[in-house]
Amino acid sequence: MKILLVICDGMGDRPSKHFKGKTALQATKHKNLDELAKNGSAGIMDTIAPGIRPGSDTAHLALLGHDPYKVYTGRGPFEATGIGMDLREGDVAVRCNFGTVKNGTIVDRRAGREAFGLDELGKALNIKIGDTEMLFKHAVGHRGALIIRGTGLSDKIGDTDPHEEGKQIKTSVALEPEAKKTAEALNEYIKKAQEILSNHPMNKEREKRGFPLANAILTRGPGLAPKIEKFEKKYGIKGGCVTATGAIAGVMKYCGLDTKLVEGRGLASDLDMKAGMALDMLKEKDFCLLHIKGCDDYSHDGNAQAKAKMIVKIDAMIGRLVKKAPKDLIIAVTADHSTPLEFKNHTSDPVPLAICGQTMRRDNTKRYDEIECAGGAIGRIKGQDLIKILLDLAGKTQLFGA
Amino acid sequence: MKILLVICDGMGDRPSKHFKGKTALQATKHKNLDELAKNGSAGIMDTIAPGIRPGSDTAHLALLGHDPYKVYTGRGPFEATGIGMDLREGDVAVRCNFGTVKNGTIVDRRAGREAFGLDELGKALNIKIGDTEMLFKHAVGHRGALIIRGTGLSDKIGDTDPHEEGKQIKTSVALEPEAKKTAEALNEYIKKAQEILSNHPMNKEREKRGFPLANAILTRGPGLAPKIEKFEKKYGIKGGCVTATGAIAGVMKYCGLDTKLVEGRGLASDLDMKAGMALDMLKEKDFCLLHIKGCDDYSHDGNAQAKAKMIVKIDAMIGRLVKKAPKDLIIAVTADHSTPLEFKNHTSDPVPLAICGQTMRRDNTKRYDEIECAGGAIGRIKGQDLIKILLDLAGKTQLFGA
Repeated sequence: MKILLVICDGMGDRPSKHFKGKTALQATKHKNLDELAKNGSAGIMDTIAPGIRPGSDTAHLALLGHDPYKVYTGRGPFEATGIGMDLREGDVAVRCNFGTVKNGTIVDRRAGREAFGLDELGKALNIKIGDTEMLFKHAVGHRGALIIRGTGLSDKIGDTDPHEEGKQIKTSVALEPEAKKTAEALNEYIKKAQEILSNHPMNKEREKRGFPLANAILTRGPGLAPKIEKFEKKYGIKGGCVTATGAIAGVMKYCGLDTKLVEGRGLASDLDMKAGMALDMLKEKDFCLLHIKGCDDYSHDGNAQAKAKMIVKIDAMIGRLVKKAPKDLIIAVTADHSTPLEFKNHTSDPVPLAICGQTMRRDNTKRYDEIECAGGAIGRIKGQDLIKILLDLAGKTQLFGA
Repeated sequence: MKILLVICDGMGDRPSKHFKGKTALQATKHKNLDELAKNGSAGIMDTIAPGIRPGSDTAHLALLGHDPYKVYTGRGPFEATGIGMDLREGDVAVRCNFGTVKNGTIVDRRAGREAFGLDELGKALNIKIGDTEMLFKHAVGHRGALIIRGTGLSDKIGDTDPHEEGKQIKTSVALEPEAKKTAEALNEYIKKAQEILSNHPMNKEREKRGFPLANAILTRGPGLAPKIEKFEKKYGIKGGCVTATGAIAGVMKYCGLDTKLVEGRGLASDLDMKAGMALDMLKEKDFCLLHIKGCDDYSHDGNAQAKAKMIVKIDAMIGRLVKKAPKDLIIAVTADHSTPLEFKNHTSDPVPLAICGQTMRRDNTKRYDEIECAGGAIGRIKGQDLIKILLDLAGKTQLFGA
């Protein structure tokens, strides 16, 4: 038996004025999700813990069975892995912006949000400061990530991004004595980067086209590469992931999942293609996490109609997926967190969960939503426990004791 | 959005012969509590953990989000803060009785339970033993508290109260080598206290009136002042409390809540006045805990009719409170523990919980009692998680991760 875990990012909600006090799930028709709940059991889940608002990164760590309070070291490392950088234990990773500096003052923290030429400019920023390697990669828009690699590094360093325009680039401070080397290397790098970028022909090209110069790098959110037990080591099986979100791909890769970063999120995306990839992966692997982004984006925008349509779209995909799936597949559908339409950001409200498969008990749940699932036989569980439950339903766990 | 947390002390119950096997909540009509559950969601709560019988002090620590196993150091410290003493970190506090000693033998451990003159006698007991300050304050009846303040103190000392009449006052023993100084200071103090009390004119006055002499102090329940992060530091908002119970006031003050200790508990008390004070507090603060005592007292007495009437009285107050409350208030009604009428003491049985407010999901709960709430969409939570859930519903929390 194998496991497909479908994560509908940000699908959970609170009462919404757009739906007369109902949640998006309560207000929409989704017979395939309901069928899944009917044929299995339902529950609700605190991805991290009751009352704790999960980020997408911390939530996904928990969904893979890790304690995010123990393994999460900040956004930088997952940003770097998310754009395909090879993060290693001991590395410090920071999030970066390309910015525009004039006479020492930051005039645009995002270099006009214009990505033109930034791939090439980013490649020029791979240099050494003393014995410390500085590995830079452009991500999307004005963003990038920097890996600081060497000996005796620490992530206890201050940001160089003042988070405000009209100011100078800050000097990174060592927040503990052991961080002196890292802060000094970063400060030296920030200076060198300005020289390299200012003299680079690509910036002439940007100027010619009327784009702001990308002549400085601003850094924030440093984090030490976390120590995370890889999926196969932890559970003794191979796992994969299909997602269109770089940050999620970063977490998944770092956790040891064979991760396919695909195109398309939201109503225009090809969910059947993603579901097909997940089922293909399951021919060789025992576990696949299929991550579907749309609901979260629309919730951040407060776009109730698009969220409702996205739920209907997911429901249709689930219907076709269930038909194609092998009979002995365990399918779980849940979310990484709630993103209420009115709040437009992640909240701690528990997410609905349905688990269906030959080994799963069948409860009396009739509908898949936040309230009906809460009455299901799974009760209220924690995100960290979900994968262990799924692995046991698939017969992939060991006895504790005898 | 702001938060009102109403704690109905000891309201939870077990099947009672007085109510044909129902609980007091099941057996009474309380449409306003029901309305709250209908308009929001319900659940049940283990204030500390399943199967753990909470004290009022440990329960309230948990309700403020603290782990009582980590922060609770015994009854003494909260007894002292509860009667308005200025307990500081490093202090050791013990609970005290005034007692009557004759020829070295304790003839009455409670000096006739007669409070006459004990305020004045207590004031005479503030002395120094070496470099250690001994700060005494009379509480109510025959009770008082002693704070031992100085350097190198420990709470690992034995009681001087033999907990039995006809015996001598015990010598406090050091239960660890580091407690020697504290035990010696206490033993010296107990001797000095007998001299001071025996020679005090107030004891002549007590004799004249036919009251037993209050000529000795008996100590029990030593505890080091706990290290507790103050409410505003922990949650970034200001909080208040309204209660008529000294011990609760002590816990609340020590946790950093602006606490109003008011008169009146039970059926004769003015609940509307207390509710009004709580709503007033919420004009300036984001959180208020309104503590209502009656149910617990009547349960300890096994007085079923009074408990039922108290529930009806609370229900009426809730009805008026909801009408007066601002629209965007989050209201939660629960108990600190169950106090079953048949058992006459606190038990671990989970307490009912209803949370109502614009951001709270609406489940299918129709009635507010131990059984109907258990079927609600909140499920079964821990006391420590409640405040985090409430803070998130009010938009007062931070994302963990990104």
